[in-house]
Amino acid sequence: MSRSSSLLQRSLQSVWHPCTQMKHHERYPLVPISRGEGAWLFDADGKGYLDAVSSWWVNLFGHNQPQIKAAIRAQLDQLEHVMLAGFTHAPVVELSEQLAALTGLGHAFYGSDGASATEIALKMSFHYWRNTGQPHKTKFLSLQNSYHGETLGALAVTDVAIFTDTYAPLLQQSAHMPSPDSRLAADGESDHAYALRCAQALESHVAQHHATLAALIVEPLVQGAAGMAMYHPVYLQRAREICQRYQLHLIADEIAVGFGRTGTLFACEQAGERVSDIADFICLSKGITGGYLPLSVVLTTDTVYQAFYHDQAVKGFLHSHSYTGNPLACSAALATLQLFAGRDVLSENRQTAQQLWQAVQSYDLPLQQVRQRGMITAFDIDTSNPQFAHDCYAAALENGLLLRPIGNTVYWMPPYCLTAEDQAHLVRATRAAIVESL
Amino acid sequence: MSRSSSLLQRSLQSVWHPCTQMKHHERYPLVPISRGEGAWLFDADGKGYLDAVSSWWVNLFGHNQPQIKAAIRAQLDQLEHVMLAGFTHAPVVELSEQLAALTGLGHAFYGSDGASATEIALKMSFHYWRNTGQPHKTKFLSLQNSYHGETLGALAVTDVAIFTDTYAPLLQQSAHMPSPDSRLAADGESDHAYALRCAQALESHVAQHHATLAALIVEPLVQGAAGMAMYHPVYLQRAREICQRYQLHLIADEIAVGFGRTGTLFACEQAGERVSDIADFICLSKGITGGYLPLSVVLTTDTVYQAFYHDQAVKGFLHSHSYTGNPLACSAALATLQLFAGRDVLSENRQTAQQLWQAVQSYDLPLQQVRQRGMITAFDIDTSNPQFAHDCYAAALENGLLLRPIGNTVYWMPPYCLTAEDQAHLVRATRAAIVESL
Repeated sequence: MSRSSSLLQRSLQSVWHPCTQMKHHERYPLVPISRGEGAWLFDADGKGYLDAVSSWWVNLFGHNQPQIKAAIRAQLDQLEHVMLAGFTHAPVVELSEQLAALTGLGHAFYGSDGASATEIALKMSFHYWRNTGQPHKTKFLSLQNSYHGETLGALAVTDVAIFTDTYAPLLQQSAHMPSPDSRLAADGESDHAYALRCAQALESHVAQHHATLAALIVEPLVQGAAGMAMYHPVYLQRAREICQRYQLHLIADEIAVGFGRTGTLFACEQAGERVSDIADFICLSKGITGGYLPLSVVLTTDTVYQAFYHDQAVKGFLHSHSYTGNPLACSAALATLQLFAGRDVLSENRQTAQQLWQAVQSYDLPLQQVRQRGMITAFDIDTSNPQFAHDCYAAALENGLLLRPIGNTVYWMPPYCLTAEDQAHLVRATRAAIVESL
Repeated sequence: MSRSSSLLQRSLQSVWHPCTQMKHHERYPLVPISRGEGAWLFDADGKGYLDAVSSWWVNLFGHNQPQIKAAIRAQLDQLEHVMLAGFTHAPVVELSEQLAALTGLGHAFYGSDGASATEIALKMSFHYWRNTGQPHKTKFLSLQNSYHGETLGALAVTDVAIFTDTYAPLLQQSAHMPSPDSRLAADGESDHAYALRCAQALESHVAQHHATLAALIVEPLVQGAAGMAMYHPVYLQRAREICQRYQLHLIADEIAVGFGRTGTLFACEQAGERVSDIADFICLSKGITGGYLPLSVVLTTDTVYQAFYHDQAVKGFLHSHSYTGNPLACSAALATLQLFAGRDVLSENRQTAQQLWQAVQSYDLPLQQVRQRGMITAFDIDTSNPQFAHDCYAAALENGLLLRPIGNTVYWMPPYCLTAEDQAHLVRATRAAIVESL
């Protein structure tokens, strides 16, 4: 038995893998990874897989990234961790200041899981209204097909049936507004027109229910788990106006789309000059550490912060997670921001994205709804194979590629360090995997 | 302005600190930490603070711990992260195997925040009953004064008013059973007798409501946030019997009490031979990485695992967090377990605990309810100062000590590396802080 196959048997025995029906691994391979380099992952037998989904959308600058490694190493010699209640440290202060400067949202509250960030934003929004004399604003709005995490509060604003249906008896009711996903536009309707139509539906609902509504939470521009549903930025502009008119917060969940994925550093910047022009709260995680360590953060406004600043302890936001502001994770995040500052990553990505776009255009495959937003490229496959997602995933692995279709949607969300050879492999292996699984 | 005071001003400006009414920092100091060594934290001006609460109960073997550092460094050169859906790696497999061997619970599901672990266990329990034909088992029981985290699902089973009251409109109803906290025993009633009385109350409730009950969740032996409430292990034995008789899961939340805090590796071992004799699920976090990195895990039984193993995807546990099973955090956890394996830490701790116990006995202070469970030592202070907790915290800092009383309860939960000098300082500085704040 090879080293790889022994480890995978042991893994199936002891590790309960996330987002997985474990029985499916009787048919589909589990892959044991021993090292990474750039956009590639390698198993113990030396076989390489191009990481076309950035390991669940977390990796930005490649595996084994020298600057991020160096930052973590240096921080290990300085301070690994101290509690953040009553205490502070340079990495968390510097990171908070930089994120404030980049977003215009000046107060940073930390967790470790992305779902925790959603929960923090929801609780803060509710608590803000309570502190400011509007305790009846207890409900949240989200979009159809949205994904905001799977802890019970986050799941209540999520609308992906495979994640939510089972747990319905445990969830608070929450209304889901029509998704501006441009695939859902009527025949001949532009994505812009459709986004405006969805915004109108949002306004109708909000006009009726605003007295009980605390916040609208959205994934700006791309709903990832919905199958890389993309929509026109005008929806965010209108949603912002509606939220301001009717006194709701707008929570931008940029856990997946932040840090350059959509072509701008934050997706909200395609709807307003800064994040703070669009959102009262932004949730960040995943790419924040370049894909190295768990860290999440919610950034918000002075207005929100001041509503909690009071002599009474219970008016404060007493939420906490043990590893809040972990210095090692913050140092990885600082190194990641440094990589953005060091060269024009977003311009380079534009070039890469254009090349990927052209490659997809040249595919002789039954593609539908080819779409791209920055470094996220997606298309749907016209196939009658009900197992397409699984088969394509398995075929991609055979071809040395980590591709993870969502239903019939194939997407690329690669690290920002693709070489020309990597790109060629990505395009070639994706085509092969699709052809084998139609 | 010193380096320390400049950093703290910047921190107050940009960092929203957890579990904190930020306005209180107008009166009470925020401390900027720049490095740690053993049981000590040092600010940028070089002043040291003995970390008597292990930085919120996470640190086990001291700051700047050479073996854990070395393990993270080595893993940084190997593989920093890969998604755990469809993929695996040696650190997560080895950690899962070791935790299975230590607890008797053979399947490990990972998150990063402790609250996420609670949410995972609650969802798994509910989903287990649903998969096995008992969909009406949708409710959870917890103990009065319990703390299981602050995401909305975890908060619903938490019963600490300052964390829960504000958010009541967002929370599912959950019943709280009498806490076996021995401080609540009647005059002359032993902690054993009181624990049995509480178990009886639990049984009455369960006998009536078991058809709708999925699980009982408890912090075994010590309810930390309740003010280090300690109780007799017989409660866990009875609770286990009751849960088995009436078909409820028992979830042991050892996020705070695991990894030797209570004198045994896991607190449940004081009620049964192994964790699996007492609990269907154990939640672990905090000390699991020795206080280095965020990581949480839920371990459970073959029975639970098998109920999810099915051809249908939706019968699987599809929950996920991006950084599930992060290799760097797993490597820190493996190094931590190695430190337990390398020498008889629990015996050494027994000696330290005994010395601390004797020191408290010799205090000429208005102490009440002096109690100890392993490396957790606590006592309540008889004082009329309503600001005792804040004042004692501030006085301790002045005396070079990180002490964080909960109400009138002063407690020690130090790292396992206290030297004789550290102990002497701990005892002396604690006394001084109390005297100054009575």
